Amino acid sequence: MSVPKIVILGAGFGGLMTAKGLQKELGYNEADITLVNQNSYHYITTKLHEPAAGTSHHDHARLSISSVINTNRIKFIQDRVSAIKPEAKEVHLENGEPLSYDYLVVALGGAPETFGIKGLLENAFFIRNINSVRMIREHMEYMFSRYQEEKREDLITIVVGGAGFTGIEYVGELVDRMPELCREYDIPLEKVRIINVEAAPTVLPGFDKELVDYAVKYLESKGVEFLISTPIEECTEDGVILKGGKEIKAATIVWTGGVRGNKVVEESGIETMRGRVKVDEYLRAPGYDNVFIIGDSSLVFNEQERPYPPTAQMATQQGQHLAKNIASLIRGGELKPFKYEPKGTIASLGNKEAIGILGDKKMTGWSAAFMKKIVDLRWLFLLGGISLVLRKGKL
Amino acid sequence: MSVPKIVILGAGFGGLMTAKGLQKELGYNEADITLVNQNSYHYITTKLHEPAAGTSHHDHARLSISSVINTNRIKFIQDRVSAIKPEAKEVHLENGEPLSYDYLVVALGGAPETFGIKGLLENAFFIRNINSVRMIREHMEYMFSRYQEEKREDLITIVVGGAGFTGIEYVGELVDRMPELCREYDIPLEKVRIINVEAAPTVLPGFDKELVDYAVKYLESKGVEFLISTPIEECTEDGVILKGGKEIKAATIVWTGGVRGNKVVEESGIETMRGRVKVDEYLRAPGYDNVFIIGDSSLVFNEQERPYPPTAQMATQQGQHLAKNIASLIRGGELKPFKYEPKGTIASLGNKEAIGILGDKKMTGWSAAFMKKIVDLRWLFLLGGISLVLRKGKL
Repeated sequence: MSVPKIVILGAGFGGLMTAKGLQKELGYNEADITLVNQNSYHYITTKLHEPAAGTSHHDHARLSISSVINTNRIKFIQDRVSAIKPEAKEVHLENGEPLSYDYLVVALGGAPETFGIKGLLENAFFIRNINSVRMIREHMEYMFSRYQEEKREDLITIVVGGAGFTGIEYVGELVDRMPELCREYDIPLEKVRIINVEAAPTVLPGFDKELVDYAVKYLESKGVEFLISTPIEECTEDGVILKGGKEIKAATIVWTGGVRGNKVVEESGIETMRGRVKVDEYLRAPGYDNVFIIGDSSLVFNEQERPYPPTAQMATQQGQHLAKNIASLIRGGELKPFKYEPKGTIASLGNKEAIGILGDKKMTGWSAAFMKKIVDLRWLFLLGGISLVLRKGKL
Repeated sequence: MSVPKIVILGAGFGGLMTAKGLQKELGYNEADITLVNQNSYHYITTKLHEPAAGTSHHDHARLSISSVINTNRIKFIQDRVSAIKPEAKEVHLENGEPLSYDYLVVALGGAPETFGIKGLLENAFFIRNINSVRMIREHMEYMFSRYQEEKREDLITIVVGGAGFTGIEYVGELVDRMPELCREYDIPLEKVRIINVEAAPTVLPGFDKELVDYAVKYLESKGVEFLISTPIEECTEDGVILKGGKEIKAATIVWTGGVRGNKVVEESGIETMRGRVKVDEYLRAPGYDNVFIIGDSSLVFNEQERPYPPTAQMATQQGQHLAKNIASLIRGGELKPFKYEPKGTIASLGNKEAIGILGDKKMTGWSAAFMKKIVDLRWLFLLGGISLVLRKGKL
């Protein structure tokens, strides 16, 4: 007797939660579960701004997959997905044999949204994964190391494109890192420029104004320059050109301007909007009862028919919910509709400052920073219980 | 009553030994001593291969000048020398007022000798000072950090030009560093290439053959590739082109091929050979009784009329001798001729291996490595006594 085959693509927040959930919900002989991921490790997207600035090591933002899932229960394949063929119920891999499935969970994450800005893909860095943030840190340090020889101001100028959550959190880490970096490379701290450029008329668009003001005031007090209502027209080898033609010469340009869906999803024949799939209330792709899409590649709408932003919180809840639904399906049970329950949002501003809303409570300063760390620990707890929290967590 | 003005240019091994010696020999009112150096610190040239590879921090290879000389006795000026005018008895500085002198000690160090190899100055790095080695380390790390994204083999290929002492010692440090570096950037160790290219028909030309063989065998066992009798024809943005046309693609090229004299000395009107000055037995520049030249800008010949190589040992002995001679001159005494006394040579091959000759005794392995560290500590002892050894020394 054959058991249903479940294939999960991606071991980010959504994919890993689905895998963990299925591992818990299903008995040994109820399903054949495979998890595919291009790296042997899971990385914690919400912490990548730290290694990008160098305030913590990138190993603090990743966990080996075999340490958090039971590889006797779930088969793990390290490979890159090259194509999804929903008609053939197949997934193609870059190196391995194609996989067939009865149920497919697509949790491949997103790609940077460049809004068509010229030269961005070629000349900017992206806070995207372990490789990319390690490269940002090393690039910045190399540029700083050249300053004493070349005395070019652009070497110690950092332009951060986008003042959304990632942008602001990254700027907060940069502010924390600079004194150490300047000591290391014999650079006067006041010579360094950190410029945060945002096309929208405010930092953290859509967020509580009082908290936004708090964040801006704090970061400005640390020397950060904000250019809001200022679209970037072009990114070059030398810096950025702003709308209107003004140029900022900068050796390090980091784009945090947003996320679009995954190319593999776009090319699968499934209907997408900017690469993201508007899923139904059971997180299914339009037209395919057995294909579920979660995380950054999925679009979920709120009651006002506006899309929720793609967050780790969203992906986590989707993964938890989906695991229960798939277990139910396999046992001939019913699907329950997914409903996102926002728990709040906290943005860190370096190690000791943050702003946030939990429930209807606004928080700033060290208490918000403390809550942010609790939220980070919660993810470790979901993945590996208290033992993982003790092993990898830090306050 | 005015006292004689002594100006010392450069706080390397030679300049610093002269300053320390004069500080000891002369009483408070016997001379007006000024030391000029472009940095606020002295760097230990013989240790620069370590921070260049990243096996030790660059702060272990420098000491603040004010911590080793008595700035109440010796006036310290941080500035760069732009010209020496021996006829006018003046030294011009980049930022400050010109200095006049009665006695001048030129200890400005050398410059990289490129032997006219095309593209070397533009595309290669040099183990030259704190700024340059910090840059080498950061450049190499940035190249390694890009490997996982770009998978280009040249990113993790390092070409070291020159297999003299600096070249071999640097390669030894690289070998020590690679396991850590590969872990940091998720690179399989066996993929890294370290290629040492030397135009002469042997590694360490002129050194004892048995010891050379030991060094080569050890480094080859760690994966180093040697290309001897292989001149570099050109250095490009992409790598090096060897004589005969073969290209090696490499993102990091470090040139250790030799030292020539200082440009400021060459332009002073004093007679030079490849920028170095053949000094008389009292270390005086030809034609100027009151201008002394020591260290890498000086040429001292042995009894077979062959020049000694420019080393820290040579500069140190010159500085010690010169301080006594100048003190004697000021008091109306006689000058004593300088005679170099080679004490031996040790080349480290990383932290735990070395080869060397002390007196007529050959050494290899850990005992040579230990002796090398003793030699390093001796320099600290000469500069700051046992307290400096305890503060900065490491075994």
